[in-house]
Amino acid sequence: MRNVTADNITEVFAAYFGPDTDPRLRQVLLALARHLHDFAREVRLTHAEWRKGLEFLEWAGRITGPERNEFVLLSDVLGLSSLVDMMHSVPGATSSSVLGPFHVSNPPPLPIGGDLKGAWEGEVVLVQGLVRDMQGNPIPGATLDIWQTAPNGMYSSQDPEQDIHSFHALMTADETGRYAFTTVRPVPYTVPDDGPVGEILRAAGRHPWRPSHLHMIVAAPGFRTLVTEIFPEDDPYLDEDTVFGVRADLIMRYQPQPAGSFPAEGFALSGKVDGPWSRVDFDLVLAPEGVEEAQAAAAG
Amino acid sequence: MRNVTADNITEVFAAYFGPDTDPRLRQVLLALARHLHDFAREVRLTHAEWRKGLEFLEWAGRITGPERNEFVLLSDVLGLSSLVDMMHSVPGATSSSVLGPFHVSNPPPLPIGGDLKGAWEGEVVLVQGLVRDMQGNPIPGATLDIWQTAPNGMYSSQDPEQDIHSFHALMTADETGRYAFTTVRPVPYTVPDDGPVGEILRAAGRHPWRPSHLHMIVAAPGFRTLVTEIFPEDDPYLDEDTVFGVRADLIMRYQPQPAGSFPAEGFALSGKVDGPWSRVDFDLVLAPEGVEEAQAAAAG
Repeated sequence: MRNVTADNITEVFAAYFGPDTDPRLRQVLLALARHLHDFAREVRLTHAEWRKGLEFLEWAGRITGPERNEFVLLSDVLGLSSLVDMMHSVPGATSSSVLGPFHVSNPPPLPIGGDLKGAWEGEVVLVQGLVRDMQGNPIPGATLDIWQTAPNGMYSSQDPEQDIHSFHALMTADETGRYAFTTVRPVPYTVPDDGPVGEILRAAGRHPWRPSHLHMIVAAPGFRTLVTEIFPEDDPYLDEDTVFGVRADLIMRYQPQPAGSFPAEGFALSGKVDGPWSRVDFDLVLAPEGVEEAQAAAAG
Repeated sequence: MRNVTADNITEVFAAYFGPDTDPRLRQVLLALARHLHDFAREVRLTHAEWRKGLEFLEWAGRITGPERNEFVLLSDVLGLSSLVDMMHSVPGATSSSVLGPFHVSNPPPLPIGGDLKGAWEGEVVLVQGLVRDMQGNPIPGATLDIWQTAPNGMYSSQDPEQDIHSFHALMTADETGRYAFTTVRPVPYTVPDDGPVGEILRAAGRHPWRPSHLHMIVAAPGFRTLVTEIFPEDDPYLDEDTVFGVRADLIMRYQPQPAGSFPAEGFALSGKVDGPWSRVDFDLVLAPEGVEEAQAAAAG
């Protein structure tokens, strides 16, 4: 077109696709361009605002690397990450929630009953539950990749004081689907706000806090891998997670336990916990592989 | 919200804004999030597609630097850059068109009648015209920041063989608003397609070609700075510019001139051009500063 206009540019964009373009790719790319164009037209985006947006992306690019991903964080605070999670959650299975930028590869194995907190101080929390399918059957041998903040509010990848695998572990459920470990409470923390995302949050009058949570990636052959987080019911930020990660079914309860009642066997800390401790019971329900496709086929 | 859903997330996002947020920032950011959410819902964006999009942004970040800006290019091939240009063009003034990623700062001054092509071979093209206002009055002393590809299809910033200021110049119009220079024809070229933008173009069955063009940034006190490009009417890519830059009023004509007719005076090349040459007459019409605001106020 030698006469592209503000009104016809989306049609011109659509006309540029080649005849052999993959239909799904065409659908996604055309919808992306159309919504981008509609956004720009709706707000009558100025050059200065367009330039500012590009500068934010450039800035995000400069600070993104193996241990920090500002693009994921941008998607998180815009609600896009959570929206994608929620659209593909399966009713009846545990909801998924944002992966976040702090997952570390190759976590060290931790046996059932192992301790995640290492040398860190704090009230012991015992977390346990079953990994099961949507019919209630245990999933023996499911793996749980578990990570959380240290009591100082930092993940290992943010904190030069911590080993990179501090508060990261890989656990394999037993033949009954059971997992169990001890730790200390994760704490609320702020997402990194010294980059463009922080500038956006401040400009929007938003805080950078997330409620405290335990991250898990739960996987087993024949099941959809579940990326999720679980949140305590009494966290002050539960209703205003800056990355929109909380779902009703991901809320856990710290159940206070009296001093001296810690299990005598089966835990690395058995015999070492004298004071009060807390217990969390949380089952993880996996959807079968292909369930979404089957539901879509049934609906369609 | 502890119960964010795929249906209410845009409202939750809106509720997070602080009470003192700048109204324009709120409008732009909320519209951006809403269109992003609508896009994701409309195509039911998958985790794999979301991840792929983030990887493209990360890749763009890694290759963006002082001499290459993949984010600008992404905006260009999606039509966003041109849309922003067109929305703010003023009827009656020369249309703006994409800046592109190849502008270089501090171009060397070139006197009126100067030569831009340096030692490069090729048929001489004489480009001249007036810088004027929307009533036809000349704008004495307007500055023209001019740049183009070398005959090898590369801008100086892409080509280690060229000086960084090769085919870049800053000209000041005379008291009649006139500018004039000699050069060789710019040539069609491909946008850089060895990055994520290239992958998108290939996946969409699109070519990376732009029609040949001369870039100009024209500025004068009291007038809106014009960022534009002019395109020859016979270029094979005129109707399929991969960055959507062509506008009807930005088309120029190479007017063939007989051998021996090159002006005897007033040009650096006077006395040095024996063969046939071409001439382009192109006036640049600037809108007054604040015209858009005045039009918006009048409209509404």
